[in-house]
Amino acid sequence: MIHTILFFFVLLSSYTSYADDLCVADLLLPNTPSGYPCKSETNVTVNDFVFSGLVPGSTINPFNFAITSAFVTSLPGLNGLGISAARADFGINGSVPVHTHDATELLIVVEGQITAGFITRTKVYSKTIKPGDLIVFPKGLLHFVVNSGVGKAVAFVAFSSSNPSTQILDTLLFGNNLSTSIIAETTLLDVSQILKLKAQFNGTG
Amino acid sequence: MIHTILFFFVLLSSYTSYADDLCVADLLLPNTPSGYPCKSETNVTVNDFVFSGLVPGSTINPFNFAITSAFVTSLPGLNGLGISAARADFGINGSVPVHTHDATELLIVVEGQITAGFITRTKVYSKTIKPGDLIVFPKGLLHFVVNSGVGKAVAFVAFSSSNPSTQILDTLLFGNNLSTSIIAETTLLDVSQILKLKAQFNGTG
Amino acid sequence: MIHTILFFFVLLSSYTSYADDLCVADLLLPNTPSGYPCKSETNVTVNDFVFSGLVPGSTINPFNFAITSAFVTSLPGLNGLGISAARADFGINGSVPVHTHDATELLIVVEGQITAGFITRTKVYSKTIKPGDLIVFPKGLLHFVVNSGVGKAVAFVAFSSSNPSTQILDTLLFGNNLSTSIIAETTLLDVSQILKLKAQFNGTG
Amino acid sequence: MIHTILFFFVLLSSYTSYADDLCVADLLLPNTPSGYPCKSETNVTVNDFVFSGLVPGSTINPFNFAITSAFVTSLPGLNGLGISAARADFGINGSVPVHTHDATELLIVVEGQITAGFITRTKVYSKTIKPGDLIVFPKGLLHFVVNSGVGKAVAFVAFSSSNPSTQILDTLLFGNNLSTSIIAETTLLDVSQILKLKAQFNGTG
Amino acid sequence: MIHTILFFFVLLSSYTSYADDLCVADLLLPNTPSGYPCKSETNVTVNDFVFSGLVPGSTINPFNFAITSAFVTSLPGLNGLGISAARADFGINGSVPVHTHDATELLIVVEGQITAGFITRTKVYSKTIKPGDLIVFPKGLLHFVVNSGVGKAVAFVAFSSSNPSTQILDTLLFGNNLSTSIIAETTLLDVSQILKLKAQFNGTG
Amino acid sequence: MIHTILFFFVLLSSYTSYADDLCVADLLLPNTPSGYPCKSETNVTVNDFVFSGLVPGSTINPFNFAITSAFVTSLPGLNGLGISAARADFGINGSVPVHTHDATELLIVVEGQITAGFITRTKVYSKTIKPGDLIVFPKGLLHFVVNSGVGKAVAFVAFSSSNPSTQILDTLLFGNNLSTSIIAETTLLDVSQILKLKAQFNGTG
Repeated sequence: MIHTILFFFVLLSSYTSYADDLCVADLLLPNTPSGYPCKSETNVTVNDFVFSGLVPGSTINPFNFAITSAFVTSLPGLNGLGISAARADFGINGSVPVHTHDATELLIVVEGQITAGFITRTKVYSKTIKPGDLIVFPKGLLHFVVNSGVGKAVAFVAFSSSNPSTQILDTLLFGNNLSTSIIAETTLLDVSQILKLKAQFNGTG
Repeated sequence: MIHTILFFFVLLSSYTSYADDLCVADLLLPNTPSGYPCKSETNVTVNDFVFSGLVPGSTINPFNFAITSAFVTSLPGLNGLGISAARADFGINGSVPVHTHDATELLIVVEGQITAGFITRTKVYSKTIKPGDLIVFPKGLLHFVVNSGVGKAVAFVAFSSSNPSTQILDTLLFGNNLSTSIIAETTLLDVSQILKLKAQFNGTG
Repeated sequence: MIHTILFFFVLLSSYTSYADDLCVADLLLPNTPSGYPCKSETNVTVNDFVFSGLVPGSTINPFNFAITSAFVTSLPGLNGLGISAARADFGINGSVPVHTHDATELLIVVEGQITAGFITRTKVYSKTIKPGDLIVFPKGLLHFVVNSGVGKAVAFVAFSSSNPSTQILDTLLFGNNLSTSIIAETTLLDVSQILKLKAQFNGTG
Repeated sequence: MIHTILFFFVLLSSYTSYADDLCVADLLLPNTPSGYPCKSETNVTVNDFVFSGLVPGSTINPFNFAITSAFVTSLPGLNGLGISAARADFGINGSVPVHTHDATELLIVVEGQITAGFITRTKVYSKTIKPGDLIVFPKGLLHFVVNSGVGKAVAFVAFSSSNPSTQILDTLLFGNNLSTSIIAETTLLDVSQILKLKAQFNGTG
Repeated sequence: MIHTILFFFVLLSSYTSYADDLCVADLLLPNTPSGYPCKSETNVTVNDFVFSGLVPGSTINPFNFAITSAFVTSLPGLNGLGISAARADFGINGSVPVHTHDATELLIVVEGQITAGFITRTKVYSKTIKPGDLIVFPKGLLHFVVNSGVGKAVAFVAFSSSNPSTQILDTLLFGNNLSTSIIAETTLLDVSQILKLKAQFNGTG
Repeated sequence: MIHTILFFFVLLSSYTSYADDLCVADLLLPNTPSGYPCKSETNVTVNDFVFSGLVPGSTINPFNFAITSAFVTSLPGLNGLGISAARADFGINGSVPVHTHDATELLIVVEGQITAGFITRTKVYSKTIKPGDLIVFPKGLLHFVVNSGVGKAVAFVAFSSSNPSTQILDTLLFGNNLSTSIIAETTLLDVSQILKLKAQFNGTG
C-alpha cells in the first residue's frame, strides 16, 4: 500500500512540478516593473522570509526620530507580494517630516501617543492616537506624524508595496540642486526661507 | 495680492475639483470585486481611517489564542487599498490552526517567542522568532504559528488585502456537512478520525 | 443566400450577446475603487466619448496659468480605461505650483518654451523643452512646470488614470486648518513664512 | 472537551466573520469596470457555480458552426475571477470568421481536425491540430479557425476574462450603418465588395 | 499604385515597429513576478502556442486518477497571459485529494459523472455533474473532485494563471519533515493518524 | 544646527535608501510581461524622460498620412508606467486604415477637421471633430480616422500602454502569407478582392 501511495505521490508531483509557489528576489539581477527576477528555489531558505531587525533605532538626534524598514531589498521573500513593514521610534517631541508614498501606509501605535494625519484637497484628516490604535494613510496623500505624548512613542508600520518610495518634502525641495528661483516660483516660499532650508538640507542651486 | 492668490486658488480648484483622493467604503451598499462603493466625501471623517481596537483579546480558552482584526468592514478607509491588519495574542502553548489566506501575511512579533512557518510542495519553511523579528507567509500558502516560548506571545499582522479571507483547515473539513466519505476519499484520513473531529467542530454529514 | 447569412448573423449574436465592449460611467451612481458603474448601453452615445472643451483657458490672473481637464467626470467614456487628458496654458512667466499625482503625467509642448522637471530622493530631473518635445513625470513624483520662454506657452497633457488626483503642495499645507505648529514641526518652515502663505491661501489654524 | 472546541470555533469565527470568500454577480445591478456587485452570500447556491449547457449547438446552417458560451452573465460565480468558457461545434467545412477578443483564448480540440491561427504585424501563426491539441490565441490578436478535417469538429474554449467581448470583422464592417465611403477609404476594399457584404450582413450606410 | 501602397506599408511599419504583440517565455532565463522574460520574436514559432499532450494519462494506480497539464513551462506562448489548461482522467472510484490553487479553476466534464465542490467558512458547495456541465472553483478555496459515476470520467480544466500552483493538503502535511507535534497542535489530528499518513506520503519529522 | 540637520538627512536616507522611485527601461535586456528590466539609477538622465521628435512627419504619399510615436522603446522613462504618445498628421483626404490596439487611445485634434469613430457589435460611434475636441477609442475596439476637412489635420494621441501594439486590418489580412482560401472562408471577401489587395500589400499565399 505504501508503494502505491508513493507512486501516486510521484504522479501528483508531475501535476505540480511546474508550480509557481514562490518568487524570492534575486537581488543581484536588475529589478523589473513587477519586482526582481526569482532566485532558484534550491537557493531559497526560511531566512529569505524572516527579518530580524525591527528593533528600536537610535533617536539620539535633534528630531528624536528613528526608522527601520523591512523592504524587499532586505527581505527578499517579499518580492512581488505588494507588502512591507517598518518600525518607527519617536523620542520626546520627535516627528516625521511631511511626505508621501506610492503606497498606502498603515501605522499601529504600540507605545506613547502620537498625532497623525493626512491632507486632501478639501480637508485635513488628523487624530491623536494611542497604543491599540491604527491609522491609515491612503496611497499618495501627504501625511505627517508627531509625538504628542509626554514620553517616547513607538509604532509598527505596513505598506501596500514591497518596495515603497518615500517623497520627503524637505529633502526634495531643499536637499539637491533645484534652482532657488524655480522653488520660489512654484511654491511661493520666500527666497530667504528657501536659502535657510537649503543650508540645513545641504541644497545648492 | 491676497485677492489674486485666492483667485488662483479657485482656479486650481477647478483643476482638481473632480479629483479622486479617497474611496471610503459605503458598507451599506453591496461589495464589488474591486471593493465597496465609495461614500460621499462629505460623510467621510478621520474616524473612517482610525481603528481603536487592536488591544489584547482574551486568551482564556483551551487554545490560549485570540485574534482581533482591522479589515475594511470595521475600518472603511481601507477600501480598495489592498492592506489590512490584525493583532494576535497567544497564551502559554497557544497556537493557530493551519490555514491559508488569499493574501500575503506579514507577522511582527512584539512579545514572547513563536515558531512559525509555511509549507510548499517541496519544503517546510519554519523558524522560531522573537520580538523584533518579522516573518512573511506568501499569498495562498498553508501556514501555522505556535507559541514556543515559556510565557505568552503577542504579534501584529498585516495582510496584502483590505478584506482577506481565511481558510482554516479544520473548520473547512470538519465544521460543516461535507460527507464523511468524500473527506475520507480525498484526504485519506481514517473515518474514525474524521468523526472524532466532526464531533469537536460541530460537523455533520 | 442573404437569408442564410442573416441566420448566421443572428447565430453569431448569440455568441456575442453577453459581450462587454463598453462600460461608460453612470455618474449618478456612487464611484467604486475600479470606477463608476456602467450606464445601460442603450443610453450610450458618441458624445460620451467626445470632449469639446480643450480650448485655451483664461490666463488673465497673476499666475498666467490656466488648465482645462477631460477626466471621467466630464468624459464618461473614459470610465475604467486608465487614461485622461488636459490642456495647460501659460501666460508670460506663468507656472504651475509643485504638486504630485497618483498617476503618470505625459506633457506635450505645442507652443512656447517651458522648463519642467521632477524630483527624486537622489536627483532633480529638469529640462527646457519646446514644441514637439514631450516630458514624462512618473507616477507619484513631485514635479513642476514654468514658462521659461518669452511669450505664452501651451501644452497638452495625458494622465495614466481616468480620474487623477492632484496634490498641490501649497494648497495642502496652507489652504486648510492644519495647525501652524504641526506644519512648522514637520516642514521646518518658519512660523512667519507659514502664516504669510496661510494668509494667501486662505488657511486657518 | 467538545464544549471548549466549539468555544474556539466561535472565537475563530470572529476572526473570519468579515472574510470575503466569494463575490457572485448580482446581475440585476449595473456592472462596474471590475465586475458586477456581489449578491448576498445567503442567496448564493452551488448553481451559481455550475453551467449545464456546454452541449453541442446546432450546426445546421450554411456555416456549419455553433457556439455556446458560459460567461458571467449566465454563470454568475465567474464574477471578478477573470475566466470563462465556451464550446464550439463545426460541421463539415465549418469555420469562424476572423475576429479579436479583449482576452486570451485557449482552444482545446476534442473531435475532428481544425486549422487555426492568429496574425501579428510580422507573421501568420497557423497550425492544423487534432484532439488532444490545444492552441493559444493571445489577447487582442486577430484569429481564425476552420474545420479542415473530413467530418465535424468540436472544441472547448477558455477565455482570460469572465465576460470577453468579441470583435467579428464582418459584422463590425458590414453589419451596421458605417458609411461605405469610410469603409472604402480605411480598408481599401472596392465599393462593390463592400455593398455585396453589406447586403449579406444587413448593413446600411 | 502598388508602389505607393508599399510605400505606405513601410510607413505604417514605422508606426508599429516597436509594437509589443507577443511575449513568449524564454524559459532559460529566470522567472519574474509577472512571468518569464520574452524570447526574441525571431525565435518564436506557432509551436510556442500549441500543446499536443492533452491526451488521457494512465489511471492504472490505486487512485485511478491522472492529470496532464499545459502550463507556461510546457507552453511558452501562455507567458504573461493569465490562463492555462489541463486534462484530468478518473478511473472507477478515482478522485483528486482536497487542494487549493492560487487561481480560479474551471472544470468541464466530457465523459462520466463526477461529484465536485468547494468549501467556504460558511458552507459546502457541491454538485454531481455530467458531460456538458462546467463547475467553477473560485481562487484560493479548498476543493475536491470524486468520480461518482459507474465508469471512468474525463474533464478538461482551465486556470486563471499561466503557471498555477497546487497546494495538496496531504502532501503539504504528510509528505515532508514538518514535525508531528506541530501538525498535531495545529490540526488536532491524532498523532497515530499523522504517523500513519506520514508513512504513506513518505514524511519524516 | 546644520550639522544636526545633515545628521537627520543621513538618517532619513537610511529610511529611503531602498526606495524604488524609477524603473527606466534597460532596452538591451529582454522585455518581460510587465516591461523592461530597470537600468541602474546612476545611468538615468532627464533625457530618458524627454522625447523630442513629435514633429510633423511627411505626408507626401498617396495616403497623406504620417505618424510619429513616443513609445517605451524610444522613451525609456515610460517603462512600466502604462502610457505613451504619438503625433498624427493628415494631408488632404488623408486617413488611417481601420485597426485595433491593445490599449485605449485618446486623440486630441490640434488642427483641421477629422471624422473619427469606433465600432461595437451593436453600433457605430462616429463624430466629426475639430481643434479642442478629444475622442476616446476604448481598448480593443476597431476604429478609424479620416481627414474630413478641407485642409490638413494634426492630432496628438495618448495610449494607455507604454508599448501599444497596433493591429491594422489590411496588413494583417493582405500583407503576409495567410492563405487566400482561409481569408475567403473567414471573411467572406471575394477571392478577386483578396488577390487585388494582396498585390497592393505585398501578400503571398
